[in-house]
Amino acid sequence: MKAKVHVTLKQGVLDPQGKAVLHALEALGFGGVKSVRQGKFIELDLTETDPKKAAAAVEAMCKKLLANTVIEDYRVDISEG
Amino acid sequence: MKAKVHVTLKQGVLDPQGKAVLHALEALGFGGVKSVRQGKFIELDLTETDPKKAAAAVEAMCKKLLANTVIEDYRVDISEG
Repeated sequence: MKAKVHVTLKQGVLDPQGKAVLHALEALGFGGVKSVRQGKFIELDLTETDPKKAAAAVEAMCKKLLANTVIEDYRVDISEG
Repeated sequence: MKAKVHVTLKQGVLDPQGKAVLHALEALGFGGVKSVRQGKFIELDLTETDPKKAAAAVEAMCKKLLANTVIEDYRVDISEG
């Protein structure tokens, strides 16, 4: 199975990286951008073939390593292949 | 409009960050992970209300700043709101 994980900052948590991107876009002449939030996108290739077990395993990985659940949210999508 | 941008390393480009995550997962006892690739996930809030114009603007932002097109691919998804 393949897993796609999105790790994003929780609402209300300051995002200096996103702010930097926003200012860089403005400096390059891209107006009309109200806000930028930057997160992580992690793709995992798993040997597990059962979608439920794969989802549970990736969920555990998120809690333990991939996301800092104090300040970050995560979303796991499991797909075939 | 809102734009979601995924920036991922092109196939064949080494991903030391992903490798580090893979080894960390193994060290934590998570077996069964064949590979990890780490990319960026960027959410933009735009004042533009036309989906086509918004897509074109974000495409230009990707080429100019958000992605390094020599080694990275990007995908833009535009949505309402």
